Amino acid sequence: MDDKLAGMEHSEAHYFNSYNHHGIHEEMLKDEVRTKSYRDAIYQNRHLFKDKVVLDVGCGTSILSMFAVKAGAKHVIGVDMSSIIEKAREIVEVNGMSDKITLLQGKMEEVQLPFPKVDIIISEWMGYFLLYESMLDTVLYARDKYLVPNGLIFPDKATLFLAGIEDGEYKEEKIGFWDNVYGFDYTPLKQTALTEPLVDTVELKAVVTDPTPILTLDLYTVQPSDLAFSSTFALNVRREDFVHALIAWFDIDFTACHKPIRFSTGPHSKYTHWKQTVFYIQDVLTVEAGDKITGLLENKPNSKNKRDLDIKISYEFEPADPTRKAGGSYEYKM
Amino acid sequence: MDDKLAGMEHSEAHYFNSYNHHGIHEEMLKDEVRTKSYRDAIYQNRHLFKDKVVLDVGCGTSILSMFAVKAGAKHVIGVDMSSIIEKAREIVEVNGMSDKITLLQGKMEEVQLPFPKVDIIISEWMGYFLLYESMLDTVLYARDKYLVPNGLIFPDKATLFLAGIEDGEYKEEKIGFWDNVYGFDYTPLKQTALTEPLVDTVELKAVVTDPTPILTLDLYTVQPSDLAFSSTFALNVRREDFVHALIAWFDIDFTACHKPIRFSTGPHSKYTHWKQTVFYIQDVLTVEAGDKITGLLENKPNSKNKRDLDIKISYEFEPADPTRKAGGSYEYKM
Repeated sequence: MDDKLAGMEHSEAHYFNSYNHHGIHEEMLKDEVRTKSYRDAIYQNRHLFKDKVVLDVGCGTSILSMFAVKAGAKHVIGVDMSSIIEKAREIVEVNGMSDKITLLQGKMEEVQLPFPKVDIIISEWMGYFLLYESMLDTVLYARDKYLVPNGLIFPDKATLFLAGIEDGEYKEEKIGFWDNVYGFDYTPLKQTALTEPLVDTVELKAVVTDPTPILTLDLYTVQPSDLAFSSTFALNVRREDFVHALIAWFDIDFTACHKPIRFSTGPHSKYTHWKQTVFYIQDVLTVEAGDKITGLLENKPNSKNKRDLDIKISYEFEPADPTRKAGGSYEYKM
Repeated sequence: MDDKLAGMEHSEAHYFNSYNHHGIHEEMLKDEVRTKSYRDAIYQNRHLFKDKVVLDVGCGTSILSMFAVKAGAKHVIGVDMSSIIEKAREIVEVNGMSDKITLLQGKMEEVQLPFPKVDIIISEWMGYFLLYESMLDTVLYARDKYLVPNGLIFPDKATLFLAGIEDGEYKEEKIGFWDNVYGFDYTPLKQTALTEPLVDTVELKAVVTDPTPILTLDLYTVQPSDLAFSSTFALNVRREDFVHALIAWFDIDFTACHKPIRFSTGPHSKYTHWKQTVFYIQDVLTVEAGDKITGLLENKPNSKNKRDLDIKISYEFEPADPTRKAGGSYEYKM
């Protein structure tokens, strides 16, 4: 067990430790949608990487740094807070790239880079719901302090989407479960379950509305303050069904590539470790094709812990048939 | 995000938080083999619980405490270090049992019980590999300090088993993977992967040897020092196959019951959240029916963190055919 976990509650530490120490890195590396998109974006653009100084923000096991070296970078600097960087050094060594990659353990705000400026920033900073526990703030700090004018960022665009889903069976399992637990009333935990977005895979056939974008980030211009945002939405219902939850996912673009590369973490795409994020609503909406669900999604970093998110979703559902009208406002924490 | 996690490394905190705050409790409650065994052991023995004072060590959401009240206990004291106890109080309240259950947050060694002695101790203390991150030491402390002479412990017996499995495909995925990660040599992480037992479900058909018990704990007599143990083993091979790993699991007995209740976490039994624990060996053994794999398993709590385990497995495989001979000694940390 990692010393850093020593202060955790028993059951939580137990649960966490059911995974091996490098489980997160194994999961990310084995996420081929993620890793191959970065690989392709780098390998297919050697003309951009050749002889350049590259900064890898949150380098982990250094896979992106090694991709950049293979693509011709003059030097790559990898920065990560985690002790995984010790393993990254061993990996870089056995791959004969120690003279090409400098790995620094620490906060981006505190480490001393061996170059005053960098030509390209590469980073896999995205968290669940794009922004949960994300390292985007660190990437923006690095951009503002180290990136040369007209320098490149890989990736440089992120788009967050919203849609409505039918999810009666699983909602019952995750939310309804607490109504009767071996004969006891566990509704105090039902409230918690309703306010915690669920990270899980959603089948495409569960999607009842058209998706709609609610946030687009241009990494060259976005400011940390933009990560608190409000977005109105209007979801067009595609078919007669029920809506139990709204879901969110994101797409990532590498627009600097000769041939643009994009990947999606949506329900229409191949599995990624980001899955989708499910926000259950207390109502069940009875919807028909052509109906519209309109609303507002507000997101802001938690005041105590800026990598946590406070999300509020308000919606109105006003179909022609007044008996199906509904609306509500829910606060979620993740 | 829990404040207690604030000091964790980014990626680890991220990974951990992909589960909701009460995820571990949801998983344990939904483990029907576990929860129904406890329920049956308590409900079927009202004659033992009637008018008794009961202590629930590590009570979590208080499900076992409520079972005990339903079975006629005079009073139940639930103790847990985790803040889940705040939710447990709400749950006990909505179920109208606040006058029957006293919930105390803190360490067993530090809390002040409202009764000098208890008649029965109930506890679900088992961790992966029975002893990993387990609360058994706390149960033994409570036994020695609070249990009346001839008091009862639910459950009161635990047995740890070992067997050999064929697991070529998954071993390649978990261990072989690191030989070539997108063209790079990741063997520094392969070594780590080999020393970390894997908690996962094993199919019964993968089991190549007879199982053998390596540890039996009688909770009335076991001492904390017994949790460091060495056990020789001899595994009888059932069929012609390969052996890639040894696995361990445990059975739990409630022998005080009128009709004894037992459950197993083995590969022959229904899924439990404990799954099985897999120890990969570096060799692949080529085995035939009637062969024997003999060895020694040594387990001791880690000197820095007593809830972690240092496990050493040494084995010899000496079939009649000398070309198939093998042997080795491996150290694992979990």
